[in-house]
Amino acid sequence: MATFIDIHEGFVGATKEQFEEAHRRDVEIQAASGVEFVQAWLDPVSGKAFCLATGPSLEAVIHVHERAGHPAKEVYELPIAV
Amino acid sequence: MATFIDIHEGFVGATKEQFEEAHRRDVEIQAASGVEFVQAWLDPVSGKAFCLATGPSLEAVIHVHERAGHPAKEVYELPIAV
Repeated sequence: MATFIDIHEGFVGATKEQFEEAHRRDVEIQAASGVEFVQAWLDPVSGKAFCLATGPSLEAVIHVHERAGHPAKEVYELPIAV
Repeated sequence: MATFIDIHEGFVGATKEQFEEAHRRDVEIQAASGVEFVQAWLDPVSGKAFCLATGPSLEAVIHVHERAGHPAKEVYELPIAV
Protein backbone atom coordinates (compact mmCIF):
# COMPACT_ATOMS: atom_id res chain seq x y z
CA MET A 1 0.00 0.00 0.00
CA ALA A 2 1.48 3.33 -1.06
CA THR A 3 1.03 6.85 0.30
CA PHE A 4 -0.18 9.77 -1.81
CA ILE A 5 -0.83 13.47 -1.50
CA ASP A 6 -3.13 15.31 -3.80
CA ILE A 7 -3.75 18.97 -4.35
CA HIS A 8 -7.10 20.53 -5.16
CA GLU A 9 -7.87 24.11 -6.11
CA GLY A 10 -11.01 26.20 -6.10
CA PHE A 11 -12.01 26.01 -2.43
CA VAL A 12 -11.60 29.77 -1.88
CA GLY A 13 -13.72 30.84 1.08
CA ALA A 14 -14.92 27.30 1.81
CA THR A 15 -16.10 26.65 5.36
CA LYS A 16 -15.19 23.71 7.54
CA GLU A 17 -18.70 22.31 6.92
CA GLN A 18 -18.30 22.53 3.14
CA PHE A 19 -14.88 20.93 3.32
CA GLU A 20 -16.21 18.15 5.54
CA GLU A 21 -18.98 17.49 3.01
CA ALA A 22 -16.46 17.21 0.15
CA HIS A 23 -14.28 14.91 2.24
CA ARG A 24 -17.30 12.81 3.22
CA ARG A 25 -18.00 12.11 -0.47
CA ASP A 26 -14.43 10.84 -0.87
CA VAL A 27 -14.75 8.61 2.17
CA GLU A 28 -18.10 7.22 0.99
CA ILE A 29 -16.59 6.26 -2.36
CA GLN A 30 -13.19 5.06 -1.14
CA ALA A 31 -14.29 1.70 0.31
CA ALA A 32 -14.56 -0.19 -2.99
CA SER A 33 -11.26 1.23 -4.29
CA GLY A 34 -8.81 0.27 -1.55
CA VAL A 35 -8.05 3.97 -1.03
CA GLU A 36 -8.14 5.45 2.47
CA PHE A 37 -8.04 9.19 3.00
CA VAL A 38 -5.95 9.70 6.12
CA GLN A 39 -6.32 13.45 6.52
CA ALA A 40 -7.27 16.50 4.50
CA TRP A 41 -6.35 20.14 5.04
CA LEU A 42 -7.72 23.36 3.57
CA ASP A 43 -6.37 26.85 3.08
CA PRO A 44 -9.56 28.82 2.39
CA VAL A 45 -7.55 31.92 1.41
CA SER A 46 -5.81 30.33 -1.59
CA GLY A 47 -8.56 27.74 -2.02
CA LYS A 48 -6.00 24.93 -2.00
CA ALA A 49 -6.79 21.60 -0.36
CA PHE A 50 -4.37 18.76 0.36
CA CYS A 51 -5.42 15.14 0.94
CA LEU A 52 -3.10 12.51 2.37
CA ALA A 53 -4.19 9.01 1.35
CA THR A 54 -3.04 5.43 1.21
CA GLY A 55 -4.04 3.16 -1.61
CA PRO A 56 -3.04 0.60 -4.21
CA SER A 57 -2.18 3.09 -6.97
CA LEU A 58 -2.14 6.70 -8.05
CA GLU A 59 -4.91 5.93 -10.51
CA ALA A 60 -7.13 4.65 -7.68
CA VAL A 61 -6.75 7.93 -5.77
CA ILE A 62 -7.48 9.96 -8.90
CA HIS A 63 -10.54 7.84 -9.59
CA VAL A 64 -12.07 8.30 -6.12
CA HIS A 65 -11.76 12.08 -6.37
CA GLU A 66 -13.24 12.07 -9.88
CA ARG A 67 -16.22 10.00 -8.76
CA ALA A 68 -16.67 12.31 -5.75
CA GLY A 69 -17.02 15.24 -8.15
CA HIS A 70 -13.86 17.14 -7.24
CA PRO A 71 -10.96 15.87 -9.35
CA ALA A 72 -7.50 16.58 -7.96
CA LYS A 73 -5.28 18.99 -9.85
CA GLU A 74 -2.13 17.06 -8.91
CA VAL A 75 -1.43 13.71 -7.22
CA TYR A 76 1.98 12.52 -6.07
CA GLU A 77 3.12 9.16 -4.76
CA LEU A 78 5.25 9.56 -1.63
CA PRO A 79 7.52 6.54 -1.15
CA ILE A 80 9.79 8.43 1.25
CA ALA A 81 8.62 9.92 4.56
CA VAL A 82 10.62 11.27 7.49
CA MET B 1 -0.31 27.69 16.92
CA ALA B 2 -1.24 27.27 13.27
CA THR B 3 -0.66 24.40 10.83
CA PHE B 4 1.16 24.78 7.54
CA ILE B 5 2.11 22.74 4.52
CA ASP B 6 4.93 23.69 2.24
CA ILE B 7 5.99 22.43 -1.14
CA HIS B 8 9.56 22.09 -2.33
CA GLU B 9 10.82 21.21 -5.77
CA GLY B 10 14.10 19.92 -7.11
CA PHE B 11 14.48 16.68 -5.16
CA VAL B 12 14.37 14.50 -8.28
CA GLY B 13 16.08 11.19 -7.57
CA ALA B 14 16.80 12.05 -3.94
CA THR B 15 17.30 9.11 -1.60
CA LYS B 16 15.77 8.64 1.81
CA GLU B 17 19.16 9.48 3.34
CA GLN B 18 19.41 12.74 1.41
CA PHE B 19 15.86 13.67 2.34
CA GLU B 20 16.52 12.85 6.00
CA GLU B 21 19.58 15.11 5.90
CA ALA B 22 17.53 18.01 4.46
CA HIS B 23 14.83 17.44 7.06
CA ARG B 24 17.43 17.27 9.83
CA ARG B 25 18.64 20.75 8.92
CA ASP B 26 15.09 22.06 9.30
CA VAL B 27 14.69 20.36 12.65
CA GLU B 28 18.03 21.72 13.92
CA ILE B 29 17.00 25.25 13.03
CA GLN B 30 13.35 25.09 14.08
CA ALA B 31 13.85 25.26 17.86
CA ALA B 32 14.46 28.98 18.12
CA SER B 33 11.59 29.82 15.77
CA GLY B 34 8.65 28.09 17.42
CA VAL B 35 8.19 26.00 14.27
CA GLU B 36 7.85 22.23 14.53
CA PHE B 37 8.04 20.04 11.45
CA VAL B 38 5.53 17.27 12.05
CA GLN B 39 6.22 15.15 8.97
CA ALA B 40 7.77 15.42 5.54
CA TRP B 41 7.15 13.36 2.41
CA LEU B 42 9.05 13.04 -0.85
CA ASP B 43 8.14 11.99 -4.37
CA PRO B 44 11.58 11.38 -5.90
CA VAL B 45 10.07 11.02 -9.38
CA SER B 46 8.69 14.56 -9.61
CA GLY B 47 11.19 15.86 -7.06
CA LYS B 48 8.40 17.39 -4.98
CA ALA B 49 8.58 17.40 -1.21
CA PHE B 50 5.82 18.32 1.23
CA CYS B 51 6.39 19.37 4.85
CA LEU B 52 3.63 19.55 7.44
CA ALA B 53 4.50 21.95 10.24
CA THR B 54 3.05 23.85 13.15
CA GLY B 55 4.27 27.28 14.08
CA PRO B 56 3.46 30.85 15.01
CA SER B 57 3.31 32.22 11.46
CA LEU B 58 3.78 31.51 7.80
CA GLU B 59 6.83 33.75 7.83
CA ALA B 60 8.42 31.65 10.58
CA VAL B 61 8.06 28.47 8.46
CA ILE B 62 9.49 30.22 5.40
CA HIS B 63 12.39 31.52 7.46
CA VAL B 64 13.38 28.09 8.83
CA HIS B 65 13.50 26.59 5.33
CA GLU B 66 15.50 29.54 4.04
CA ARG B 67 18.03 29.22 6.84
CA ALA B 68 18.24 25.46 6.19
CA GLY B 69 19.25 26.19 2.62
CA HIS B 70 16.18 24.82 0.84
CA PRO B 71 13.56 27.56 0.54
CA ALA B 72 10.02 26.35 -0.03
CA LYS B 73 8.37 27.13 -3.35
CA GLU B 74 4.94 27.50 -1.73
CA VAL B 75 3.66 27.62 1.85
CA TYR B 76 0.01 27.49 2.86
CA GLU B 77 -1.67 28.00 6.22
CA LEU B 78 -4.23 25.27 6.92
CA PRO B 79 -6.83 26.46 9.43
CA ILE B 80 -9.26 23.69 8.44
CA ALA B 81 -8.51 19.98 8.79
CA VAL B 82 -10.82 16.99 8.56
